[in-house]
Amino acid sequence: METWLTQIKEGNKRQIARLISRMENGDPEKEKWLDALYPHTGNAQLIGVTGSPGAGKSTLIAALIRLLRHMGKTVGVLAVDPTSPFTGGAILGDRVRMTEHALDEGVFIRSMGSRGGWGGLAQATSEAVRVLDAAGYDVILIETVGVGQAEWDIMHLADTVTLVLNPTAGDVVQVFKAGIMEIADLFVINKADLPGVSRLKQEIQDLLALSKHDAPWHPPIIETLATEEKGLEDWWEAAERHYAHLRGHGLLVQKRRARIEKEVSDLVFSAWRERFKAKQQAPRFRRDIQDALDQRISPHEVARRWLKEELRIETQFQADPVDD
Amino acid sequence: METWLTQIKEGNKRQIARLISRMENGDPEKEKWLDALYPHTGNAQLIGVTGSPGAGKSTLIAALIRLLRHMGKTVGVLAVDPTSPFTGGAILGDRVRMTEHALDEGVFIRSMGSRGGWGGLAQATSEAVRVLDAAGYDVILIETVGVGQAEWDIMHLADTVTLVLNPTAGDVVQVFKAGIMEIADLFVINKADLPGVSRLKQEIQDLLALSKHDAPWHPPIIETLATEEKGLEDWWEAAERHYAHLRGHGLLVQKRRARIEKEVSDLVFSAWRERFKAKQQAPRFRRDIQDALDQRISPHEVARRWLKEELRIETQFQADPVDD
Repeated sequence: METWLTQIKEGNKRQIARLISRMENGDPEKEKWLDALYPHTGNAQLIGVTGSPGAGKSTLIAALIRLLRHMGKTVGVLAVDPTSPFTGGAILGDRVRMTEHALDEGVFIRSMGSRGGWGGLAQATSEAVRVLDAAGYDVILIETVGVGQAEWDIMHLADTVTLVLNPTAGDVVQVFKAGIMEIADLFVINKADLPGVSRLKQEIQDLLALSKHDAPWHPPIIETLATEEKGLEDWWEAAERHYAHLRGHGLLVQKRRARIEKEVSDLVFSAWRERFKAKQQAPRFRRDIQDALDQRISPHEVARRWLKEELRIETQFQADPVDD
Repeated sequence: METWLTQIKEGNKRQIARLISRMENGDPEKEKWLDALYPHTGNAQLIGVTGSPGAGKSTLIAALIRLLRHMGKTVGVLAVDPTSPFTGGAILGDRVRMTEHALDEGVFIRSMGSRGGWGGLAQATSEAVRVLDAAGYDVILIETVGVGQAEWDIMHLADTVTLVLNPTAGDVVQVFKAGIMEIADLFVINKADLPGVSRLKQEIQDLLALSKHDAPWHPPIIETLATEEKGLEDWWEAAERHYAHLRGHGLLVQKRRARIEKEVSDLVFSAWRERFKAKQQAPRFRRDIQDALDQRISPHEVARRWLKEELRIETQFQADPVDD
């Protein structure tokens, strides 16, 4: 086995950090490394943690790390901020709260930002998960802020998704609207000493009745007070119960299959898109675009021509000359 | 000319609304309609309005509509809410404030929500813009909430993008991080009677110095108080000045060309993705996925096989068997 791979498998934190960075930066060796890592993955339990900014996710995660370390488990954390294409996630102030674990050999924490645009963030996170998985971390926590396409894709990397809410926030309907409710396996009501807990619980239950979940799993609702380390055991117990449920019903392998399918189709797509971009420089394509700009043909007609002639894809609709 | 097209060109609001709905719902005739509309488009001035929820965008837009109507211009409004895949944008409460214009024949207002997932929203908005453009509206206002991939795509449909901020919100850095700063052509500081206006102006100017803009355009910063209809003329004057700048420097045609290129490549891509989805059902592909699930080959190896054999795309990296 190559030296770098041995070092990763031994949990060498410097090597792990370097490998993730080099992959993030699109190193040409990347695929080779991912191929080599792949047989050593599949052992970590992947927990997603999402919720609004200010819900207390980082405090919760810091407290959960303490609990897991106490139980003898090693923990990797990927804190993903899809809104920071410029900063690479570096200014995530909440990271500071986790620094107490920075010197612990059994904990690896990393921020991920969308340097290369939103689309690539889920892919980069998936690659980082694979590195941490091969490095032997028992539990990998994936944290995202807010709701949106990127967060949704990222949460699909996890086996168990925890949605963190606050009794006073009143954001449940927003969360429901954004489809996050459907991917949440557990609900954590953090800051459960504030008024409104029972109302929020009722709201969650009402909305859960409207959304699809893999029966017979009923997402539990857990109350925590992260700042006082209350409720963490309940959260972890629920996560373990969900993981056992996934394994017991053959759902874990189903999730993994779906994840592989999505990864393959994203990889194929992005390679294809690169090729199409190159073709767009061809004189023939420039002419078609110019014709569309001059309103002689429609953009749809240009697309149909390209699908037919270059990709041999016939679309249902047959082209007519545009009428005036 | 077909009857429906005549009706659209006459500005028949019922026909306009029906056509947009039918296109949103993916009517099979859609491409034919878009082809027929296309030669009649290109006359509207497209103004994007973005900013955080609560910044006062809807009140500003309602006031701008009043000003434009006073000037004899007709106005179309598309209020786009990318966070509402479930509701189809129907619960956008702010729309209520615009109902005063509902009976005005020279004003058309429409909410757009992401029924079909985030990806399709920019495409649906672009189609609705085309309908309103062909219907002869002089100005089309496109409003989005918040920041993210979807909003970014939608704002690229506009000729002039206005970013609305508030002196007290403190969200400039967020906005900068999300890349919205780069696409803003004008800044409107609404609620300019609140303290902090000069600090915010300074912040915007400092951040503008860090971001790319088409020289020699310097995005102006306008102060408004939408609830008292103050500053609207300044906003409109700045929008007109930006539009003249685009025309004068050949930038309008550049923007339109880029928009057409993006539209064509999105159309080609989504047709291609449909085809790839169908191929994924093939036994050969199912076997490859199973091999990846069993960790005999990596997902990257599956992707390389498919790129090579099905799409005849050779990737740089040559496949090795995974080492263990």
